[in-house]
Amino acid sequence: MTEAMDMDTRMQQFDEDVETILQLLDDKSYFKARDEILKHNEVDIGEILEEVLEELGVEKTIIIFRMLPKDVSVEVFSHLPSDDQLEIVQGITDREISYIIDELDFDDKIDVLEELPANIVDKILEKTPKEERKLINTFLNYPDTCAGSLMTPDYISLQESMTVGEAMAHIKREGMDSETVYTCYVKKGGRKLEGIVSLRSLVVADDEIKVSELMNTDYVYVNVYDDQEEVSEMFKKYGFLAIPVVDKEHRLVGIITVDDILDVIEEETTEDIERMAGIMDGSDTEYLDIGVFRHVKNRLPWLVFMTVALMLTGTIIARFEAVLSQVIVLVSYLPLLMGTGGNTGTQAATLVIRGLSLDEIDLKDTLKVLWKELRISVILGIILSLFNFAKVVLVDGQSVMIGLTVAAAMIVVVMFAKLLGGLLPMGAKKLGIDPALMATPMISSITDMVSAVTYLLIASLLLGIAL
Amino acid sequence: MTEAMDMDTRMQQFDEDVETILQLLDDKSYFKARDEILKHNEVDIGEILEEVLEELGVEKTIIIFRMLPKDVSVEVFSHLPSDDQLEIVQGITDREISYIIDELDFDDKIDVLEELPANIVDKILEKTPKEERKLINTFLNYPDTCAGSLMTPDYISLQESMTVGEAMAHIKREGMDSETVYTCYVKKGGRKLEGIVSLRSLVVADDEIKVSELMNTDYVYVNVYDDQEEVSEMFKKYGFLAIPVVDKEHRLVGIITVDDILDVIEEETTEDIERMAGIMDGSDTEYLDIGVFRHVKNRLPWLVFMTVALMLTGTIIARFEAVLSQVIVLVSYLPLLMGTGGNTGTQAATLVIRGLSLDEIDLKDTLKVLWKELRISVILGIILSLFNFAKVVLVDGQSVMIGLTVAAAMIVVVMFAKLLGGLLPMGAKKLGIDPALMATPMISSITDMVSAVTYLLIASLLLGIAL
Repeated sequence: MTEAMDMDTRMQQFDEDVETILQLLDDKSYFKARDEILKHNEVDIGEILEEVLEELGVEKTIIIFRMLPKDVSVEVFSHLPSDDQLEIVQGITDREISYIIDELDFDDKIDVLEELPANIVDKILEKTPKEERKLINTFLNYPDTCAGSLMTPDYISLQESMTVGEAMAHIKREGMDSETVYTCYVKKGGRKLEGIVSLRSLVVADDEIKVSELMNTDYVYVNVYDDQEEVSEMFKKYGFLAIPVVDKEHRLVGIITVDDILDVIEEETTEDIERMAGIMDGSDTEYLDIGVFRHVKNRLPWLVFMTVALMLTGTIIARFEAVLSQVIVLVSYLPLLMGTGGNTGTQAATLVIRGLSLDEIDLKDTLKVLWKELRISVILGIILSLFNFAKVVLVDGQSVMIGLTVAAAMIVVVMFAKLLGGLLPMGAKKLGIDPALMATPMISSITDMVSAVTYLLIASLLLGIAL
Repeated sequence: MTEAMDMDTRMQQFDEDVETILQLLDDKSYFKARDEILKHNEVDIGEILEEVLEELGVEKTIIIFRMLPKDVSVEVFSHLPSDDQLEIVQGITDREISYIIDELDFDDKIDVLEELPANIVDKILEKTPKEERKLINTFLNYPDTCAGSLMTPDYISLQESMTVGEAMAHIKREGMDSETVYTCYVKKGGRKLEGIVSLRSLVVADDEIKVSELMNTDYVYVNVYDDQEEVSEMFKKYGFLAIPVVDKEHRLVGIITVDDILDVIEEETTEDIERMAGIMDGSDTEYLDIGVFRHVKNRLPWLVFMTVALMLTGTIIARFEAVLSQVIVLVSYLPLLMGTGGNTGTQAATLVIRGLSLDEIDLKDTLKVLWKELRISVILGIILSLFNFAKVVLVDGQSVMIGLTVAAAMIVVVMFAKLLGGLLPMGAKKLGIDPALMATPMISSITDMVSAVTYLLIASLLLGIAL
């Protein structure tokens, strides 16, 4: 490493390396390919294997996977997406599977077992010692999105009565098998968590000092059934590297480390973003790995809901046939009002949903949000009205009355949409519904109807056409 | 702490505590309020002060801020949002400001200085020793969103020739002033980064072993001008606690720790989500802290763009006056087609944008994406067509020809929208534009026009009406 390359150059270099490896494998130059692969770190090898699996199929992937040194292959396996892990598991022997599962860190082990089919899991567990089997089963039973499913039991336990010197000796013995050594946990009377102590404070302290003097007893903890979203909020708020997980009796059952939280944040955000666009997908499978029918199933429910809403809007518009058939040009401004209603409402809803999800907005801020959106909508409504009035009258050459109709409807629609966009997510939160469900699909379905009614009512009024 | 409370109970408890404190401050029982406040940790005290500032104003906030022990007040200050920091800075003496800035960790110091008005920064820097002033100025000059703006120069440096025992003694001396002690950096020949070594590997190793034997020379690093989004991708990918930042000559200039990356991820995601909803806000200011006019300014550009697009759609519709005036009922299905186009297109675009931002989709996957969206859109198109045909003919009692018009237009619109939703974000990426800009606003603006034209053309064709 003589000179530092910037990120783009390095990414390009990596892509070229992957191409080379794929070419070598395609030519059946397995040993050369392995040598090229082993120039990379385990995370990158994981990415390379993903490419191999995608481009060359599962057989070649397994050939090269088996050629990796055993410790590397276990580490690489833990970095693969779960559907790739499954493909590999199905292609290797039971003996090889057992070896890999055995060697994985406890939390990776649980992640893998959660995704594997039950018959394979049973086969693996048969060969596991009874004590560990019991522990694995407990961990497998925690609901998928709670703190319990994220934690690992591999942490460093210290005793209050230890000196720093004794504690350091203990860490030296246990350190390699532990998920983290940087936060240690002090227990008393069996498994009750008494306090936590950071390795930093141990390292800078003198050897004779007692652990009890260094430990922090006013530590932050989570409950084993707390939701993972709340857990990730704790990490963001406090900037910790690890948080202890306790049960109802305040016994330490595991710890959660920050590296696993990065995945949770990504997962939770993706779920929010998808829901805001009317997509219901419970899994964290990647877009390209989701089958066509699953994609259809994820997208259809909201599409049907929105179609019904749009049909209703159509029925409302049909009621105004008298107005429309007399002044057919009104039709050409209908999309403008409906579209603007949806767009302005979505903006407000998006900001409020994000604010709620980052805890920047609370339920008690409802009136503040509405007051803000009211003022914003008045200003935006007036600007858009003037703009549209000018377009209708000056550019399109329509009558002032039609211009006024569009302008008046515009102000009402923008104000309604902004207030609705502010209110609906808050209401959802209040009712315990995910505010992300109150984004575009819901907002635009409602504003469409209201926009159509408002516009056509104002039109019949201003143009003096009886309904 | 006798029993573990779940998160909701604890949050409720905290809200009650805040209420009590606000009440005490309102009654001018400052000492009692301080005692209540000091029962909490520094992060929570930060939240309490935010509430005090919001509810009771800046004067009471400063009174209580001054009553906190000095070390607590500095720590609390570093956890406040930057606009709250500014309000406090403007209310306290220069001496107090200097004290706080002096005591802050280097990276927090830079964050605070970046947000303060230039005249205050100048005043502070005047009193700073020359060496540190130079360093601060270098850090302040890094662009806001690059690795350089996230890093801290407070890391542990080791020498290759040190033994583990010597290294541990060095860490013991320097450890308290360093941002992290858990990863240490080995330099040679001045400042060139040679390798990194984790505290874990030092702790478990014997005292006589040389650092050079333990260090990893094939470490992952970032360049000082790499974008923060790419840096956060590295953290997610590798699960590191810290990453070294080097300059062009591969000299170590600082390190970035994972706790700062959590904020970056949040910031970058918020920007994406906002852009996807047509909101342009460059800052990371919270919703409630953004003024009404800034909100208007953030939302207006896309609204105007979309208004122009909707006007164009209106003009297109006006061209089909002949068709519409002959069969006025066609108008009532116009929202259905336009709305469905926007909705289906947005679903596809959202998934592709998210996939691109998580690196799950690459530019080379463009054909795969299009092929997937094509199949999805055919299935969804057929389902929605049948559904709508039934509604138009059976429920509304319209003619079969009108039913066919709606159904045929529906298939075309859904297919077009899904392909556009897949293609536009990929195209943006290719051109170096943020794909998040290709979400709802852009997609629906285009699909609106295409939906209107498709529908009305098919209508004139099937119903035999000359344009």
